[in-house]
Amino acid sequence: MADIAPFQVMELLVRARGMEAAGRDIVHMEIGEPDFDTPGPVQRAARAALERGGIHYTPAMGLPELREAISNWYRTRYGVIIPPGRICVTPGASGALLLACGVLLNPGDKVLLADPGYPCNRHFVRFCEGEAVGVPVGVGSAWQLTAEQVGARWTDGTTAVLLASPSNPTGTIVGRAEMAGILEQAGKRGGRLIVDEIYHGLTYGFDAETALALSDEVFVVNSFSKYFSMTGWRLGWLVAPEGYVREVEKLAQNLFISASTLGQRAALAAFAPENLAVLEERRMEFQRRRDYLIPALARLGFEVPVMPQGAFYLYADCGRLTGDSHRFALEVLEKAGVAITPGNDFGRHLPERHVRFAYTTSLERLREGVERLGRFLGS
Amino acid sequence: MADIAPFQVMELLVRARGMEAAGRDIVHMEIGEPDFDTPGPVQRAARAALERGGIHYTPAMGLPELREAISNWYRTRYGVIIPPGRICVTPGASGALLLACGVLLNPGDKVLLADPGYPCNRHFVRFCEGEAVGVPVGVGSAWQLTAEQVGARWTDGTTAVLLASPSNPTGTIVGRAEMAGILEQAGKRGGRLIVDEIYHGLTYGFDAETALALSDEVFVVNSFSKYFSMTGWRLGWLVAPEGYVREVEKLAQNLFISASTLGQRAALAAFAPENLAVLEERRMEFQRRRDYLIPALARLGFEVPVMPQGAFYLYADCGRLTGDSHRFALEVLEKAGVAITPGNDFGRHLPERHVRFAYTTSLERLREGVERLGRFLGS
Repeated sequence: MADIAPFQVMELLVRARGMEAAGRDIVHMEIGEPDFDTPGPVQRAARAALERGGIHYTPAMGLPELREAISNWYRTRYGVIIPPGRICVTPGASGALLLACGVLLNPGDKVLLADPGYPCNRHFVRFCEGEAVGVPVGVGSAWQLTAEQVGARWTDGTTAVLLASPSNPTGTIVGRAEMAGILEQAGKRGGRLIVDEIYHGLTYGFDAETALALSDEVFVVNSFSKYFSMTGWRLGWLVAPEGYVREVEKLAQNLFISASTLGQRAALAAFAPENLAVLEERRMEFQRRRDYLIPALARLGFEVPVMPQGAFYLYADCGRLTGDSHRFALEVLEKAGVAITPGNDFGRHLPERHVRFAYTTSLERLREGVERLGRFLGS
Repeated sequence: MADIAPFQVMELLVRARGMEAAGRDIVHMEIGEPDFDTPGPVQRAARAALERGGIHYTPAMGLPELREAISNWYRTRYGVIIPPGRICVTPGASGALLLACGVLLNPGDKVLLADPGYPCNRHFVRFCEGEAVGVPVGVGSAWQLTAEQVGARWTDGTTAVLLASPSNPTGTIVGRAEMAGILEQAGKRGGRLIVDEIYHGLTYGFDAETALALSDEVFVVNSFSKYFSMTGWRLGWLVAPEGYVREVEKLAQNLFISASTLGQRAALAAFAPENLAVLEERRMEFQRRRDYLIPALARLGFEVPVMPQGAFYLYADCGRLTGDSHRFALEVLEKAGVAITPGNDFGRHLPERHVRFAYTTSLERLREGVERLGRFLGS
């Protein structure tokens, strides 16, 4: 437990809520959750499922018709054939990561991850008694691991590589060639690749390719939370290589019994054209926010040297403004009424020079936040 | 993974479903899930929550108002004061067991459990790299661990005891005096007690006492699945000792983010008087089923030497009918069209002499099942 850190941003959130309770207005640019509500078609499907009743356990791997729908999604969206039998519906991407780490890791096994990266990912590794090896990444590789790094950092005890593409906190992706190179490096050492694709769908100007297009031997984690705007429903999925399906099922039976039944029935509507139309509109809105925010922050002295291609985050270099991003974030909250996340939630590689901005609030509020930051920095 | 067994009953279930698909009628007495639908008041609360929208993440420990409602439940139902701050709402009791094992166990730590017992309980221990030590229990102690056994089996590496009361598969409970004795044995060695109380509410003719009445230092796992008939909603809770609350929260943040929001809002109606009236009616129905089934099975040669006081299971000795309960269960399925669970799902202590009957189907179907068994055994 000592190795599992609490979210640093929580301290900040508690403070922000205290300020709000005292009547202060706070612009929230720290929250990793889309501000959009569950889309109408999914809500209506949930209502119909409720009327129908029978909210019993589903099979541990999920409702067969939902696994089928996810398989169709891979075919139509990505042009990739994934048999439903390889898809396990899980309680959020969290459940999928727990299953992947659970079936892959023995105590002491090392897993390579990018630093900075999403803190839960290394904590899942640690929870399964593996060792998360954070590899410092920078702007040169768009904040992502490279095949060269994977080759260089691999040791006898290394079992797997865990990538997130698009990444939290940087919004950057791993390109096809690099992904293929990483796969090759891991593959020739008998290692495995886990790819967190939970921000797929939220890429701007292009569709990200799934790692499943390159190999049937990767583990892919995905979620209904981000693109599909279904956070509170706690629903995700894992695609496992054929040879691991039996193990995944066994573990899912024991750890979860099954994912939320109503959530699964509601999610059946997630892939319908009328729902996708709503989601695509939201995606464009996220893009407008990103495209507003980057130059606006640049004018204030925040540098974003790698254009984030997806998710709803910017990982900004605040080195020209402060030498201590944690204290800076607290000051920005207290004095400007703007909540942002300091770099130390995401790893040990230059956290003091970085802060994460989430554009999960309206353009209007983002403008308000930028104005406040401007006044704070100008004073 | 090699130490985590699949549910044996799944093989049987797959076979049963195959037979049903081929037109055969099967009486299901193997299913560990109440046959009742989500009660009306909870369904209505879910509908209202859907209309209201905003199905976002909740705090990791759960909706404050639901933690408050659970705290009230302890006060009104048990006369025990549990501050909401010690209650963590989880994705099913599964989530609660994962948190309890996660915060308590280091690799190699030993946990004492009753054999026979619910297989997932030992698998949670194993998943957290602990060692589940099954202690054979029999009719003399109503299939439960005794304080004497806990004292005798404790070693340097033992960290905790995990009890289930009422127990799956036996339906028996741990009495107050024995519970106090077990607490004393564990306590004086610096060990912890985890009590699975998920079948509370489903005890017949009396209300079970919570282990929390005896000590603030126990971990208690509970669920909305059984008494509250909310299996598919995947919602449970953990009560942790004050000193572990911070660790529990940290782990919940990382492993789950939060439990299903709609489920949590719906569960707010679970404790309302009109809902409890429905649940108490169902409880009486379970009691009628138990009271029918035990003598009916006894007439066929199944012995149930300890009256199960709760849950919806009978653990029957079939030693007069077979020396191999696994083969027997398969035969009963094929020849009589009745699905029951063989003892080997529940441990290593005399599984070949025992089968579990679940009374999660109507009295009419139970009668049909008993008649079929009678014809099968008479032939």
